[in-house]
Amino acid sequence: MTLAELAEHLGCRLEGATESDAAQTITRVNGLDDAGPGDVTFLTNPKFTSRVAGTKAAAVLADDSLTGAPCPILRTATPSVACAAAIGLLTPVVVPVAQGIHPLASIDPTAVLGMGVSVGPFVAVGPDAVVGAHTTLHPHVAIGPQVRIGEHCVLHAHVSVRDRVVIGDRVILQDGAVVGGEGFGFATRADGTHQKIPQVGIVVIGDDVEIGANSTVDRPAIGETRIGSGTKIDNLVHVGHGVKIGKNVRLAALVGIAGSSIIEDDVVLAGQVGVINHVRVGPGAQVASKSAVMNDLAGGQTYAGIPAIPIGQWRRWAVRYRKRGKGPL
Amino acid sequence: MTLAELAEHLGCRLEGATESDAAQTITRVNGLDDAGPGDVTFLTNPKFTSRVAGTKAAAVLADDSLTGAPCPILRTATPSVACAAAIGLLTPVVVPVAQGIHPLASIDPTAVLGMGVSVGPFVAVGPDAVVGAHTTLHPHVAIGPQVRIGEHCVLHAHVSVRDRVVIGDRVILQDGAVVGGEGFGFATRADGTHQKIPQVGIVVIGDDVEIGANSTVDRPAIGETRIGSGTKIDNLVHVGHGVKIGKNVRLAALVGIAGSSIIEDDVVLAGQVGVINHVRVGPGAQVASKSAVMNDLAGGQTYAGIPAIPIGQWRRWAVRYRKRGKGPL
Amino acid sequence: MTLAELAEHLGCRLEGATESDAAQTITRVNGLDDAGPGDVTFLTNPKFTSRVAGTKAAAVLADDSLTGAPCPILRTATPSVACAAAIGLLTPVVVPVAQGIHPLASIDPTAVLGMGVSVGPFVAVGPDAVVGAHTTLHPHVAIGPQVRIGEHCVLHAHVSVRDRVVIGDRVILQDGAVVGGEGFGFATRADGTHQKIPQVGIVVIGDDVEIGANSTVDRPAIGETRIGSGTKIDNLVHVGHGVKIGKNVRLAALVGIAGSSIIEDDVVLAGQVGVINHVRVGPGAQVASKSAVMNDLAGGQTYAGIPAIPIGQWRRWAVRYRKRGKGPL
Repeated sequence: MTLAELAEHLGCRLEGATESDAAQTITRVNGLDDAGPGDVTFLTNPKFTSRVAGTKAAAVLADDSLTGAPCPILRTATPSVACAAAIGLLTPVVVPVAQGIHPLASIDPTAVLGMGVSVGPFVAVGPDAVVGAHTTLHPHVAIGPQVRIGEHCVLHAHVSVRDRVVIGDRVILQDGAVVGGEGFGFATRADGTHQKIPQVGIVVIGDDVEIGANSTVDRPAIGETRIGSGTKIDNLVHVGHGVKIGKNVRLAALVGIAGSSIIEDDVVLAGQVGVINHVRVGPGAQVASKSAVMNDLAGGQTYAGIPAIPIGQWRRWAVRYRKRGKGPL
Repeated sequence: MTLAELAEHLGCRLEGATESDAAQTITRVNGLDDAGPGDVTFLTNPKFTSRVAGTKAAAVLADDSLTGAPCPILRTATPSVACAAAIGLLTPVVVPVAQGIHPLASIDPTAVLGMGVSVGPFVAVGPDAVVGAHTTLHPHVAIGPQVRIGEHCVLHAHVSVRDRVVIGDRVILQDGAVVGGEGFGFATRADGTHQKIPQVGIVVIGDDVEIGANSTVDRPAIGETRIGSGTKIDNLVHVGHGVKIGKNVRLAALVGIAGSSIIEDDVVLAGQVGVINHVRVGPGAQVASKSAVMNDLAGGQTYAGIPAIPIGQWRRWAVRYRKRGKGPL
Repeated sequence: MTLAELAEHLGCRLEGATESDAAQTITRVNGLDDAGPGDVTFLTNPKFTSRVAGTKAAAVLADDSLTGAPCPILRTATPSVACAAAIGLLTPVVVPVAQGIHPLASIDPTAVLGMGVSVGPFVAVGPDAVVGAHTTLHPHVAIGPQVRIGEHCVLHAHVSVRDRVVIGDRVILQDGAVVGGEGFGFATRADGTHQKIPQVGIVVIGDDVEIGANSTVDRPAIGETRIGSGTKIDNLVHVGHGVKIGKNVRLAALVGIAGSSIIEDDVVLAGQVGVINHVRVGPGAQVASKSAVMNDLAGGQTYAGIPAIPIGQWRRWAVRYRKRGKGPL
């Protein structure tokens, strides 16, 4: 693909390109420092603007904040979106997924598989489960009874989906994710022993959701645990029983959300954030890594700290924390 | 089941019910706000007392602290225990577990399976393992050599139990839990490389223990890692090598306990708590979420913070932390 | 093995032993308090020196800091290394691994397995994968297309290695570890939805690496995620996309490292430490448990706190934190 063709595919304005620049073949997306001839690079984080001057790339994807470059610029309002598209365009599919149902899969005769479903070896699909068209089940996936999975989903190796869970279309579950395990609900008896509260609710996951490797989403005793469409969850995240997560939320690795809390649309929780039970995080709120949400948080603001407070307030505290450590005891 | 029958089954006193109230059919347990006719609801958290007035439920499970309700009250000293029982009574078993040994399981000929054991597809049971009567092994469970598992246990999909681990009766292991992986033990050589210390000890788990999805319990180099009877562990919890956990302990999600520490009976560690190695947490101690236990803690008290201190002391610190963030730099 | 023979095998000087002491049979390594006749014990942590006086062991492994003992001393400069060796020498291999390829494994005909490879039941090896000589694949391991695994590796049950990942020699992956899952990379569109950035890079793991149970190492969009030789990673650790980890690093349980950060040689991150993205931790730096690395850290020092600061500075802060909590509001 030539640089000019790439610009057209990405909907970018090509700036500073001679005719021969425009005609050169682009084969790869690469980082500012690593890119060479034939590579397109990108500036998506202003922190790295100074590195553009030294790039050997054939062109750089950037927004209007970049005022000069040693190579042609592919100008776009959303360089990260264009970069994502470029990687998709330029990467050959090196690893085709096997088609059809592997003979060593175990599909219950009452399960219903849509057209074009791919099933790897040692996949177990339980009774009355429904798997939508063009969905791929990688090796060792376990689908419980009465599960409903949409179309064009990809479930990677060792994913567990427990009984009656409902999953939308185009959902991606990375390796080892568990959806519908039993919530951590016990009633303590007078003698100090804990009686299990049967966790007979379900988990409902919207469309275009991604859940990371070895993350866990629990089912509740009553009602549903819900994850809204477009929400993306990283690895080793815990979503407790009865939690309601809105749309387009992002949860980074090792986040834990305790039972019955509500995370509204567009929230971002950075790595290792914890949210206690029965609280609400308002729409568009962002919480910095390692913070602990211990009460309701209003939407549209950024928070940090343990407990989480508005980030400006936390930064003032952090200045003192650093200073105090230097003073005399 | 009528309301009067439910009251009798649960051992509750039925208050404020007319004859027709007592005769109505109850089909479900539901939350205060979601419950309707035919549902029984519950008040287990005093924070929600004000919501009782608005419930549409047929009856509410509560202790003596509730002084009025728009519906009959099922009075009990332990509403959460009664609620757990009610969910069990009113929920039909919608998903029967397949009986018998699936033809695609791999059971070593020297393994011994008790009466009524259920084994799903792709289960692997190693040599000389013993699985007690009426235990269920869901798809893809891996049982190592010489493992001993008790009766009436349930091991969900993708559970790993490594060689020589001993598990009691009525134990539940959620999907992906790993019991008996090798402890993180290395001796650093003079050249800075790390020599593996063989982890040849075992893990011993008591009766009535539950371990959450993708949690890990490591074996030690020497002796045993122990989890006492009645202890409940949530998802993504790490129990290090040689840790001793007492009875009826509760560990919430993403807790980590480093090697050789001792957690005594009835302790509660909330979400994301960390415990360093070689410390002891006394009986009945409770540690608030996100805290770090960096020294021995006396039993019977509640702690919070990094490092964990008595929670009253931490609350005073937290007031200052919030204030300082508001003051001038 | 006699005590004298053990001393010779371990390269230790045997002190304070009569001829009959030297001739006694040693069968086990055991802790200071638990050891009895026939056991060798060890002093690797000076915190426990006072317990040596009470040991019933036949001998104690120790360095020159131990000045007396009620039993012979196996003197060595590196007691922990000698202890590791002693455990290996004295522990019979109780659980032999099955040899050969289990008939219920699924090996793609284009995959290449070296001499002496052991493959358990329900292992799936994808097309064009290469597995080096004497490597063991335990039950339910999933090896993706075009993976390259070295010699003498051990992959425990339920490990996932995704396509094109490269793994060195003598690598140990504990149960449920996921290597090569897709990095958490999304470009947010103008309408607030998140477009997936294809994660088409690879993961490269050196020799003598160990990765703990249910840990996850992500692949990047571009280039490589790298883990250097000799590095040891505990359970439930998250290594983000594009992270570069040096040699002989140790990461304790529940550590999370966000995308593109650099952890240089010999670093130690204790339990639950978090590292934000795009930072560098210098060679030999140590970070105390629960800390958050929010900026570059120079090598050779120890840090603690959220954010992580030099540990002396943090200790001074911690004194105030404890004091303030005791004062009046």
